[in-house]
Amino acid sequence: MAGASAAMMGTETMKARVTVTLKSGILDPQGKAIEGALRSLGLRGVVSVRQGKVFDIEIEDADRAAAEAVLKSAAEKLLANTVIENYRVEVTG
Amino acid sequence: MAGASAAMMGTETMKARVTVTLKSGILDPQGKAIEGALRSLGLRGVVSVRQGKVFDIEIEDADRAAAEAVLKSAAEKLLANTVIENYRVEVTG
Repeated sequence: MAGASAAMMGTETMKARVTVTLKSGILDPQGKAIEGALRSLGLRGVVSVRQGKVFDIEIEDADRAAAEAVLKSAAEKLLANTVIENYRVEVTG
Repeated sequence: MAGASAAMMGTETMKARVTVTLKSGILDPQGKAIEGALRSLGLRGVVSVRQGKVFDIEIEDADRAAAEAVLKSAAEKLLANTVIENYRVEVTG
């Protein structure tokens, strides 16, 4: 509904997802714990688990390029620790 | 390398991603905090942020259907709290 009224006013609400994952080579004790827990639960075949974070973000008053720039900035400044984490920005519409 | 030797032995290692997000209507104080922090950092236009989790999982000795069954079971039993969270399983290859 907010999206519809924004569209009528000539602005747009965009949905996006930022996914933050540990770089390969960085230890992931949380993932290891989940791996062990799945084994204890009797699930066979799980070789490795790595946990990451996902952020579903809504942005208004933006075209696709502007939204991507804002999200990249958000990821660099706050959402990801770029020393040990990778991030990926997807604008979904 | 594990993938290569598994392939030689006639088995397969599959990669999959399980994404766990809060159901709509469930409060997300962590997301709200991130929203506020982005505003403090001077980022304009962010309407809402909701945080979720992502699990990158490797499974061996499985075809696609078997892998999906294992992952669904893992999500139901451990990765997601299905009272307040949705999950999505994607086998990526």
